[in-house]
Amino acid sequence: MKQSVLFTKILREAPKDEQSINSQLLIRGGFIYKNSAGIYSFLPLGLRVIQKIGLIIREEMNAIGGQEMFMTALHDKRYLQATGRWGVDVIFKVAEEKKEPTFNLSWTHEEIVAEIAAKYISSYKDLPFSIYQIQTKFRNEPRAKSGLLRGREFLMKDLYSFHASEADLFKYYNLAAESYKKIFKRCGLDSVYTLAAGGDFTLNNTHEFQVLCDAGEDTIYVCEKCGYYENKEITKLQDGAKCPKCGGPVKEKKSIEVGNIFPLGTKYSEAFNLKFSDEKGKKKYVVMGSYGIGLGRVMATIVEKFYDEKGIIWPKEVAPFQVHLIRIGDDPKTIKVAEKIYEDGQKRGMEVLYDDRDKSAGEKFAEADLIGIPTRIVVSERTLEKDSVEIKERNKKEAKLVKIKEIHVR
Amino acid sequence: MKQSVLFTKILREAPKDEQSINSQLLIRGGFIYKNSAGIYSFLPLGLRVIQKIGLIIREEMNAIGGQEMFMTALHDKRYLQATGRWGVDVIFKVAEEKKEPTFNLSWTHEEIVAEIAAKYISSYKDLPFSIYQIQTKFRNEPRAKSGLLRGREFLMKDLYSFHASEADLFKYYNLAAESYKKIFKRCGLDSVYTLAAGGDFTLNNTHEFQVLCDAGEDTIYVCEKCGYYENKEITKLQDGAKCPKCGGPVKEKKSIEVGNIFPLGTKYSEAFNLKFSDEKGKKKYVVMGSYGIGLGRVMATIVEKFYDEKGIIWPKEVAPFQVHLIRIGDDPKTIKVAEKIYEDGQKRGMEVLYDDRDKSAGEKFAEADLIGIPTRIVVSERTLEKDSVEIKERNKKEAKLVKIKEIHVR
Repeated sequence: MKQSVLFTKILREAPKDEQSINSQLLIRGGFIYKNSAGIYSFLPLGLRVIQKIGLIIREEMNAIGGQEMFMTALHDKRYLQATGRWGVDVIFKVAEEKKEPTFNLSWTHEEIVAEIAAKYISSYKDLPFSIYQIQTKFRNEPRAKSGLLRGREFLMKDLYSFHASEADLFKYYNLAAESYKKIFKRCGLDSVYTLAAGGDFTLNNTHEFQVLCDAGEDTIYVCEKCGYYENKEITKLQDGAKCPKCGGPVKEKKSIEVGNIFPLGTKYSEAFNLKFSDEKGKKKYVVMGSYGIGLGRVMATIVEKFYDEKGIIWPKEVAPFQVHLIRIGDDPKTIKVAEKIYEDGQKRGMEVLYDDRDKSAGEKFAEADLIGIPTRIVVSERTLEKDSVEIKERNKKEAKLVKIKEIHVR
Repeated sequence: MKQSVLFTKILREAPKDEQSINSQLLIRGGFIYKNSAGIYSFLPLGLRVIQKIGLIIREEMNAIGGQEMFMTALHDKRYLQATGRWGVDVIFKVAEEKKEPTFNLSWTHEEIVAEIAAKYISSYKDLPFSIYQIQTKFRNEPRAKSGLLRGREFLMKDLYSFHASEADLFKYYNLAAESYKKIFKRCGLDSVYTLAAGGDFTLNNTHEFQVLCDAGEDTIYVCEKCGYYENKEITKLQDGAKCPKCGGPVKEKKSIEVGNIFPLGTKYSEAFNLKFSDEKGKKKYVVMGSYGIGLGRVMATIVEKFYDEKGIIWPKEVAPFQVHLIRIGDDPKTIKVAEKIYEDGQKRGMEVLYDDRDKSAGEKFAEADLIGIPTRIVVSERTLEKDSVEIKERNKKEAKLVKIKEIHVR
């Protein structure tokens, strides 16, 4: 894409009402636009990152048998009334003028998915299976002050699995946990998998994936020797205590919850009469699990982990473009070479953002560093004197000259 | 995909509260699930169709320079108050318990996009450009009785264009109209482009794309000689009248509005101070256009146009799968050949739904006809006697035997 065409521009100033690193850098770089507290639009650069994260998630969900679907955002109140959750604090309710609310906005989809599954499941032969979606969730968070880390409207991937027994659920549960680690790894994030309290969802045995990060709202205790973790909310551990597993020293760390998984048991099956006949013809409730990842939160976590004083440093697989091609000056030969590199890249399916604008080298470099595309290629009269371009990785200090004829092999 | 894995099943009975052909066939086939009136979830088969329609739309929008983004669904009331639309009938409002509503749900995005554009546009050099999204819209329709043709929650592609002058807007307007015709054509639909009343949007000069179809809620007058059309809502024409263009006979027809385009002028630019400096440094309001396509409505229109007494007949480019491979019987050789064809198809990137279930030939054929995948390949002991499979197109009567070794060239 040519940068002259991109309708967003780099903003010089960080918005004053945004404290978090992720929202400051993402807003300044033209990735997101803040509409209200905790409510952000994804601009072209930001949507590209979200779509890359979505693609990684889809590939890994499909790999563990997840069938993609797309459930609704408007939920009739009968759904939450069936499970006693219509009174939950964080849901947004929808009402006609001067009437009682009749809908809530999708804050989670356990009720919806249980009702749908009940339409199609009758026998143990129909089990197990799993379905997922990437859909918007709405939660009226009182403290929506961390940019995309805690939104009131946010994209979430939720997977639901359906089983004949708890044993089968826990088998899939482990498969899903491995899948989650792969997803975060592909997004550039090292995650740890730990026991947690379940908030509004379940009372015990939920698990969460944490990424150690100073910007995190969670506190976990980490054994520095064996790597054992516990969430502060459910542990009696404290800073300096001995690890219950190996006796090593435990340290308090800040972290971000990037995913969570819940063994739901039969709570939702009972509410929506989701039953199956076992081998002997006996009717039993289906055992469910749920598995969530917030796409925007993953994006925000990546930014909180990978930035420097100049801007964002995107890991390759989630970067909005792979290459930032920068033309310095408007000498005809420079323009010709830059256009050629751009077109060759397009033909080979390489994702190139081509800075074809009339701006100074200093401005262009500063903006490129803020946007944070992994590889920068500079074409100027000076590099062309040596029949070369200058290539620099965003996460490295040094640039190197590479002969133009050698670029195509990269 | 193996059909034994697909969690949905064919439903024998059409739901009693659904009158429309599209909802009856789509619900029975396992494409959609009805959660409330006008509110449907997309099940795996249905989501595949929606994603195909989305892909066609994205390709054609990108081809006319559209930059994809993703705006929010929760809109602070300040947006509609700025344009005097907070009182509009069809919007869903969101309120905290016992408080005045503070948000509405996205029924359209003119206000949001105008505010975002105002952040980035300052000069005539920034114009023209266009941005689009595929996002959920919510409209509290009183008559949501036509399945996906008129939903209360539905996916919509909306494109917005920004121009320095009306002349430039109308240049792009024609480009977008051509693009729309291509989109509908790729979806298998012949559309006509006609003047229309604008409903809640604008007072005059809006245009709409109609597909002639008995299930349509719109009435248009069509000249049988020259093809000139007018919407009943804005015309004085009537059945049997003379065409104002060629004098030919005009006939009344039912039709479905599959897309519409609106020259918005400066209404939203004025409300959100969306200005640019022209060549002489004079500040002017940006001229806007908007262009909508409902994805679910396109899907429903395809069904209403292409079905027979047995079920849906999907056009190739939007079909959930290209090939429905059906194995009859469980003879080891039949299984082996069917599996081989399935795996070869997967390797070549062909989209195959493989009916590997233990059901009778009659049941399998009836279900395949209902689902409506374009090409059916049957493998049975009988076809294998002639080293062949039976191939039948969904839209044709006759089947033919094809030698197994020849299938790979298809």
